[in-house]
Amino acid sequence: MDTIAFFYFQQMKEEKAESIIERPFELERLVFFSDAVFAIAITLLAIELHVPELEFESSDALLRGVLSEWPRLLAFSLSFWIIAVYWVAHHRYFRYIVYFDDGLLWRNLVLLFTIALIPFTSSILGEYGNMSASVWLYAVNMIALGLSGAWMWRHATKGHRLVASDLDDKLIRQIQGRAFATPLAGVIVIGLTFVLGGFATIGFMLIFVFQMLVMRRYK
Amino acid sequence: MDTIAFFYFQQMKEEKAESIIERPFELERLVFFSDAVFAIAITLLAIELHVPELEFESSDALLRGVLSEWPRLLAFSLSFWIIAVYWVAHHRYFRYIVYFDDGLLWRNLVLLFTIALIPFTSSILGEYGNMSASVWLYAVNMIALGLSGAWMWRHATKGHRLVASDLDDKLIRQIQGRAFATPLAGVIVIGLTFVLGGFATIGFMLIFVFQMLVMRRYK
Amino acid sequence: MDTIAFFYFQQMKEEKAESIIERPFELERLVFFSDAVFAIAITLLAIELHVPELEFESSDALLRGVLSEWPRLLAFSLSFWIIAVYWVAHHRYFRYIVYFDDGLLWRNLVLLFTIALIPFTSSILGEYGNMSASVWLYAVNMIALGLSGAWMWRHATKGHRLVASDLDDKLIRQIQGRAFATPLAGVIVIGLTFVLGGFATIGFMLIFVFQMLVMRRYK
Amino acid sequence: MDTIAFFYFQQMKEEKAESIIERPFELERLVFFSDAVFAIAITLLAIELHVPELEFESSDALLRGVLSEWPRLLAFSLSFWIIAVYWVAHHRYFRYIVYFDDGLLWRNLVLLFTIALIPFTSSILGEYGNMSASVWLYAVNMIALGLSGAWMWRHATKGHRLVASDLDDKLIRQIQGRAFATPLAGVIVIGLTFVLGGFATIGFMLIFVFQMLVMRRYK
Repeated sequence: MDTIAFFYFQQMKEEKAESIIERPFELERLVFFSDAVFAIAITLLAIELHVPELEFESSDALLRGVLSEWPRLLAFSLSFWIIAVYWVAHHRYFRYIVYFDDGLLWRNLVLLFTIALIPFTSSILGEYGNMSASVWLYAVNMIALGLSGAWMWRHATKGHRLVASDLDDKLIRQIQGRAFATPLAGVIVIGLTFVLGGFATIGFMLIFVFQMLVMRRYK
Repeated sequence: MDTIAFFYFQQMKEEKAESIIERPFELERLVFFSDAVFAIAITLLAIELHVPELEFESSDALLRGVLSEWPRLLAFSLSFWIIAVYWVAHHRYFRYIVYFDDGLLWRNLVLLFTIALIPFTSSILGEYGNMSASVWLYAVNMIALGLSGAWMWRHATKGHRLVASDLDDKLIRQIQGRAFATPLAGVIVIGLTFVLGGFATIGFMLIFVFQMLVMRRYK
Repeated sequence: MDTIAFFYFQQMKEEKAESIIERPFELERLVFFSDAVFAIAITLLAIELHVPELEFESSDALLRGVLSEWPRLLAFSLSFWIIAVYWVAHHRYFRYIVYFDDGLLWRNLVLLFTIALIPFTSSILGEYGNMSASVWLYAVNMIALGLSGAWMWRHATKGHRLVASDLDDKLIRQIQGRAFATPLAGVIVIGLTFVLGGFATIGFMLIFVFQMLVMRRYK
Repeated sequence: MDTIAFFYFQQMKEEKAESIIERPFELERLVFFSDAVFAIAITLLAIELHVPELEFESSDALLRGVLSEWPRLLAFSLSFWIIAVYWVAHHRYFRYIVYFDDGLLWRNLVLLFTIALIPFTSSILGEYGNMSASVWLYAVNMIALGLSGAWMWRHATKGHRLVASDLDDKLIRQIQGRAFATPLAGVIVIGLTFVLGGFATIGFMLIFVFQMLVMRRYK
């Protein structure tokens, strides 16, 4: 009986080790800080939505005024969901990253830099969505975002540096593959602008299509 | 005596399981991220309160200037308390949701999308509160908010998917019922605009009345 | 020996109870949400600091431009430290509040409402600090803030409702007393405006003087 | 066997003491609040990036408009990475600070005050970067930031007040030395303005050079 008690002690210590010691205080803060930056960026987007100025004060004029804001509303919605997709991706990375090092810290900050820029490139897209250049700037932001995510994941998983030593290599490659979906969409959209001009914006929907394809495939 | 020690070990493991393992890291991050979005949206509302511009610099003119801001102050207060009520509702959902899946994640993001829009629809209400259309837009935002909450709760509780298997069905239905209070208030307010115009805004107080009725009933 | 093992088990369970079970998930979220609102309000204050517009572009003109912003810089600093003092007070309340109920939740939201208003009243003070009315508005905000803190603390401590049953009554009364320092300062400042006009703003320093007096007394 | 069980109990209690009791609730909230302020300040910086106003609506005009924003983009990037470096430094401090006292609390708030000011001094630098005075203001902000960090670390480590009693004195001095890198860079940059005028801004890169030198040395 004592042996069993001893066995349970051991097991509890190990469980604790897995759930607490492997995810150190530094990693918790990094994840927390990232979540806060994501949350602020996603909520700040709405600041770019302007209350329309009306010549005649009537319900009709107001509805028309809000509808004429559609490029800004579209840019807002697009950016909200792209940041959301990336927050979910970040989520996914840190489900498996359980150790911490300075390389992870700085790569994560590069990723957050590209997130913090989205409200700016998004408001350019909302204001001048009819011009190819606004789509290029937004696409470059997306490419930088996707590549910095891939860069961080590669750092964390190379030689199982910051993930569990028995983490499935197939899973590592699959997550890496997903990280390239956004840059790929960005490149395609830039190409599309030479045919469609500002209408190429619609190509960013590919980011969501790619996500859904991957999700369906790996279910 | 050893048997008792063993019994206590078992019990401790089970307690730990309930409080820690059932509420996984992913769920913690989701709740944390949601709290941050709620907190940012609720605090950003105050940005819409403008310092009045005065023709004559006097205490009288300033007080009159601030008082003439009453539609904006009203929209701010209304939106603060509606977001607060929904934060409390979110709180209530995640008191019972203890497992995590992707469906929950995306439905929660839809809910946050409707929260992130409130500073925009609220500032339209503050600016053009005398027009029915501003009330309609705000009411549509409230309906979307309420329905996305109900949608998430339904996903989590159907077949006790993400809640404890012994969670009381009556409680599940009660919380679901509460989620429809806000959409119902939105529909009523839209109807009222055809009689009262912008004054229908007062109908949003129904959200708080419904909450209080439910709270009193279930105490 | 077994008896000792059993004794340690018991003690561990009790310790756990104190540190984890008594501070439930709901309370953690409430504290977290409050911290986020405090952090956003304190950082948003800086948005009111405008980059001065210069007629002539020279270092001299820029320095004079920034110095002429002193009423706004003063309002920013004052509000930063008042929110900081109140965050510390909130900190102090929740060092002792270890249980949770709906009354606490709503009173805490009233407190956060008064915090969310500070960026607005602070920017009025920064813009029209020379007028008594701007000081009155700011003072009313401070009075509301202090009273809502006192109201929450009274709810939590009456009959030791949400604090440890053996929490020292003297400590409870002392913290309650501190909560009235800010409203008292607000009332004094309102009185001072009838003598000093806008210069009465300086009276808000009483908030910090009161804090320091209490801190020195109870050390 | 019982002795071993007893031994494990003891060890578990001590481990718990180290990881949980030494990093009390108050310290957690302080770190959390600081993280939130850092995250908000770093994300708010992007608000200063204005969508360029165009005379002619063309892709060329838009690209030229965005490029002509380069002083603001530079100020944004510089401030993002300085706040990031300081967040990492804060991270480092609280890896070792495991106890809490009021002195720590207030010194940390002074540090956050200098962080909250960065969006303001940064936007002045972005707007009037060609004038020495804008560089002075920014440099003063950096000096205040660095010194408040050093002040907090000194308070925490003097006589091992808030750190583990066996924390290496060499490590304490090394971290203290790093804290002076930013003020030193600030002083050098102020000197440089008398030679280079606004171009002295480039001297702030010294902050990153110093960081890298220290990181390389202590690896």
